[in-house]
This record gives sequence, structure tokens and C-alpha cells, in this order.
Amino acid sequence: MKIAILPGDGIGTEIVAEAVKVLKVLDLPFEMETAPVGGAAYEAAGHPLPDSTLALAKAADAVLFGAVGDWKYDTLERRLRPEQAILGLRKELGLFANFRPAICYPELTHASSLKPELVAGLDILIIRELTGDIYFGQPRGRRTAVDGHFPGSEEAFDTMRYSRPEIERIAHVAFQAARKRNRKVTSVDKANVLETFQFWKDVVTEVHAQYPDVELEHMYVDNAAMQLVKAPKKFDVVVTGNMFGDILSDEAAMLTGSIGMLPSASLNAANQGLYEPSHGSAPDIAGKGIANPLATILSAAMMLKFSLNQPEAAARIEAAVQSVLSQGLRTADIYSEGTRKVSTREMGDAVVAAL
Amino acid sequence: MKIAILPGDGIGTEIVAEAVKVLKVLDLPFEMETAPVGGAAYEAAGHPLPDSTLALAKAADAVLFGAVGDWKYDTLERRLRPEQAILGLRKELGLFANFRPAICYPELTHASSLKPELVAGLDILIIRELTGDIYFGQPRGRRTAVDGHFPGSEEAFDTMRYSRPEIERIAHVAFQAARKRNRKVTSVDKANVLETFQFWKDVVTEVHAQYPDVELEHMYVDNAAMQLVKAPKKFDVVVTGNMFGDILSDEAAMLTGSIGMLPSASLNAANQGLYEPSHGSAPDIAGKGIANPLATILSAAMMLKFSLNQPEAAARIEAAVQSVLSQGLRTADIYSEGTRKVSTREMGDAVVAAL
Ligand SMILES: CC(C)[C@H](C(=O)O)[C@@H](O)C(=O)O
Ligand SMILES: CC(C)[C@H](C(=O)O)[C@@H](O)C(=O)O
Repeated sequence: MKIAILPGDGIGTEIVAEAVKVLKVLDLPFEMETAPVGGAAYEAAGHPLPDSTLALAKAADAVLFGAVGDWKYDTLERRLRPEQAILGLRKELGLFANFRPAICYPELTHASSLKPELVAGLDILIIRELTGDIYFGQPRGRRTAVDGHFPGSEEAFDTMRYSRPEIERIAHVAFQAARKRNRKVTSVDKANVLETFQFWKDVVTEVHAQYPDVELEHMYVDNAAMQLVKAPKKFDVVVTGNMFGDILSDEAAMLTGSIGMLPSASLNAANQGLYEPSHGSAPDIAGKGIANPLATILSAAMMLKFSLNQPEAAARIEAAVQSVLSQGLRTADIYSEGTRKVSTREMGDAVVAAL
Repeated sequence: MKIAILPGDGIGTEIVAEAVKVLKVLDLPFEMETAPVGGAAYEAAGHPLPDSTLALAKAADAVLFGAVGDWKYDTLERRLRPEQAILGLRKELGLFANFRPAICYPELTHASSLKPELVAGLDILIIRELTGDIYFGQPRGRRTAVDGHFPGSEEAFDTMRYSRPEIERIAHVAFQAARKRNRKVTSVDKANVLETFQFWKDVVTEVHAQYPDVELEHMYVDNAAMQLVKAPKKFDVVVTGNMFGDILSDEAAMLTGSIGMLPSASLNAANQGLYEPSHGSAPDIAGKGIANPLATILSAAMMLKFSLNQPEAAARIEAAVQSVLSQGLRTADIYSEGTRKVSTREMGDAVVAAL
């Protein structure tokens, strides 16, 4: 089995190095091969997702991804910007199912913006459709408006769209995930305004007929943004489109107060997957050795479970992370009085030791 | 001067009645005329926005709107559903500038989900573009996919779009509003993915050249959803498109913990406006006399200030609301121990008495 290691930009290299260290001590039968991606790949090869990197990712059983992006690339034309690499990987590998858990660890509840009683024990799974919607819909671009409020003026436009099979497959993923949890799915839409999401709602309702043991609730996206703040623990599995999922999964992650702890997985129909921390490349702290590697290490655990069929090894990593937290070790982002502040590398070493 | 009073559905009639009572004691030279809207209008006239209601709204200097919607209309075809009334009014009156303050009253800080230090003194103004974007873009509908992941399958689609003049005028509104506040505008986009919002970002940046005294910051919508939770007080004026504004303004309103207190205004180029509470029709508590009328009363104050050129009367209403809060009067939604729980009508009477 083969893992493609794509560290990327900013803190990406530092946090991925710790996850690789953890994977190595498990002594499992897989190979790892590293390639540049994002700004690093643009510097090295003139493109954020060079052919060789894409070929490696396609050939691998799983991709462990750090993070991409830096302000210094903001002025590049769009197709050369670091984030095109992640969009390209999602599209080329067909990674339509994005799993983003929002979990509040007991030791870190205090770090949340929310009152502790609202987030203690929080465990939501946001399932975001990742290869459709307005992210990839055609046509898009600039043109002269022919109708609307100002015909004749310059305008820009994008196309939101979902086809029946796209909605069906992500709905199945959500209902099946809910069966392993608390058997409740909240499907988030904007059916009162958008044709695309009226269709979404209709198709999710149809698929639900095959899962009578799972409760299905429909919620408008504006209301979901509110209910996440008001009573996040009422959610179990949330399923939504690419654009709404982008917004709501980040909102939910921030509710926990410890986004540095949150992994993510993006899977295709063959369970090939890309695994990355929920946080970004944080160029402001890159190279300082203070980033939290735990989200990446937990992403490696998701990878072992979902794509590499090593659930025991995944559970061992999760237990090791739990143990370093219980020991009171904290990187700067989750530090609080009475705990011990450690560097990126010390945190990785501590997880290795706990294994 | 003429005010169209459109109470609507659910708690709409109860809360608007209190605002009308407050407006009457001011003894100002304007007429009020009431018409049905939403589900109530569908029942009465077979359409959520009957021609007579639309004509009244168009002829008036301002519209005081309650709320629309009830689950019982969920099965109607889309064009007959209550929310089409509000979309129709926005479109027909050209109400492109939506002002949604998110304010945390000192007396109600404890009601927020967030820790008090994060929201105490919160005062954000979200300015949402209200007549463009994917809400009204054409074409939209269902069709057979010709490309994408599943060509040949059924799909639904919508068009996101913004023209240059649409972005320019809302940007001017935002910069001018910021001049009366803390001179900071956060423009929220998704320029890294959407053509529409790359254009949005470019045009807002151009308009900013005319406001060198105002600070402009650009933020991706996913990050904005996070920063609102993490550090809401860092925002002053937020300006964004119709879809992102729908989500973020509701998120911001819920952060305050007292959405029953938050007014809103939707203005056109002639300062004709529609004023409504930020909360919805709450059919679950309709008719019980327990809804909070203060958001509607404060919307009437915004109306006096923005559309009826009566800033002193507006200030008197705001002071009266502040005074009933200081007296410890609370409707059920904002009640806490040690305060006095009052009904919708008692709250309206208390504001009248304070005037
Ligand atoms: C970088 C960007 C294109 C990306 C997205 O919008 O999907 C990011 O926000 C994410 O959520 O992974
Ligand atoms: C009712 C609905 C169409 C509306 C919207 O999406 O604009 C509402 O959510 C709002 O924010 O006023």
C-alpha cells in the first residue's frame, strides 16, 4: 500500500513531519512518497499541482496532505494559486465525500468561545459534498449583462448545480455514517430560494426511504448557522452541499475552540482518500515550530481507518493523542494555565512515546 | 407621509400591533394603512403578495413588516409560499441594501451562547446586498445534465451573478455607513473559488479608493463564519452578497443571544424602505401573547430615521426600549432570574409609558 505525502506550504511541512513520524513507528506494510503541492510546487515546478504530484496522488491508496496557501501568492493569476491544488486533487480523484468531525475534547472545552455547558461532549460530523455545486459548475466567468438590474454592464457569474446521482451518493454516505452514530441526519439546504437545493431536499428525502432507522431533519442554511451557535449538541450528522458545507464546517470547527485538533477526510467511491487537518497553512507562525500537529496526526488515523483498512492502528493513534492531552501537554494554540506548553516536535514525540 | 403596515403570519400580527401602538403615541404626521401578506394573504386572496398589497407598499414611504411563514404552507408550490412575498417586495421595490445590526445589550449579555467577555458591548452592522446574487439570477431550473460528473442525469441549477453597478452601490452604502461608525469595512467574498466574488472583491477595492479614511479588509466567507464565533468584536461593518449575507447575518444575530431584540432595514436608492424584525414568524408561539415586540418596535425606529426623516422620534423610541430593559421587564425569550416576565402587550405598553 502506498501513501502520498503532500506537506504543502506554511506550517504544512512541520505538522506533516510529525504525522509521518507517528506512522513510521506503527511499522505497517506501506510505503510513503513525498511530493510538493501548493505554493511550494509553484516555486519548484511552476504549477500548484504538477503532473508528477497528481500522478503520485492518483496511484496512491491515500494522500496525507498538510496545508496550502500564503499571502505572497495572492497576486498570482487564479489557476496558479496554491488553493487550486486542493480543488484539482478533489476533482481529479473524485473525492466527493468530505468528513469533518467537530469534536470538543473534555480537556479543551474551556478553549471554546461558547459557554462550557453548550459544547462539553460535543461530537458532530459534518459531511460536505466536495466535487459538485457552484465550486465546479459551468458556465462561469465575466460577460456583459443582457438582463437583470443593469443590462449592458459588466458582470461576473457562476453556476450552482447538482445532479441526482451526486445527491444520492452523498445522502447514502450520510445515512450510513449516521447508522454508526446517533442515527440522526440534518440535511441543510436553501430550498425556499434555490432550485438546486429544492432538488437536493427532494432527493435526500427519497434516499431516506431506504433508511427508516435513521431520523432525517431538513434545515435552511441560515437557520443551521444559527442553531450551531445556539445548541450545537442537537446535531449528529449534518449533510450539505459544497458551498454551504465550506461555511458551516468551519463555523462548527471554530465552535469547539480547538480547530488545531480537528482532522478531515475526503473520499471517493473507491475509498481512496485525502486526509488533512481542518485548519489552514497559518503562514504567520510557519517555521516557528509552534504549530499543533495533532489535527494532522488524527488525520493520519482517519486514513488508516478509512483507506488503509487498519482500524486497530487508527485506534492506537487516537488513544495516544488522548493520552498526551491527559498528560497536560499543549501546543500554544490550546495552551492554558496549569498545562505544559510544548513545541510541534515535542508534541509529535509525545504521541510516539504514548504509542 | 404614508406607512404600509404588513403584519403577515405567526407572531407577525401581535408584534406589529405593539409597534403601531408606539408609532401612534408619537403623534407624527403620517398615515398608516394595513394589508395582508404571506400566508395570511394567500388565505385571503390566493397569493402571498396580492397586487393590492404590492401597490400599497410601492405607494408608501416605508413598509413596516412583521414576519411570514408557517409549516402549513410547506406543501404549496413555490410561487405561492409565504416567503415569496418578501422576495417579491425586495425585488419590486428595489430594496438592495439590507442593514442588519447585531448588538448585544448590556442587560442581555448573559443570554448569548458566547462567553460574556466575547460579546459584551458587541455592535456589528451587517450590510447584505438584497436584490442580486443567486437569489434572482437567471437561468435556473431543472434539466438534463449535458456535462459534469453524470451527463444525461437529471439536475437542478441556479445562476450566481453580480454586475459592476450592483456591487458599486452596495459598497458605497457600506463605506458611508462605516464613516458614521468605526471606519472599518470587512468585505466578505469567496474570491478563491467564485468568479462572481473575485469580481466583487475587485470592484469593492476600486470603490474603496474614494474612501481613504475607511479601512477595508477582505475575508473569505468560511473564515468570516469562524471569526464571528472567535472574536466578533473585531468587526465593525461587514458587507457581502445576498447568499453569504443571509447566512452570516443570522449567525451574527444569534451570537448576541437576543435575536428578539434585533431590527432590520432594507432600503432602495430613494431611501424607501422595508423594516422588519430579524427573527421569523415563530408559528410555535403565535397567538400566545408571549412574543417579544422589541425588534419590531426598534425596526419602526429605524424606519423613522432612514425613511421618514424623524431622527428625534427614532431616538426617543430607542431610549424608551433601553428604559424598559433597565426597568427589568423581559418577554419570555430574554427572561432570566431576577427580572420581570411580561407579555407582548405589556412590553408594548411599557414602551409607550416610557415615551
Ligand atoms: C482553499 C479553499 C478552496 C477550500 C474550499 O473552499 O473548499 C477551503 O476553504 C476548504 O474548506 O478546504
Ligand atoms: C425567507 C427567506 C427567503 C429569506 C432569505 O433567504 O432572504 C430570509 O431567510 C431572510 O433572511 O430574510
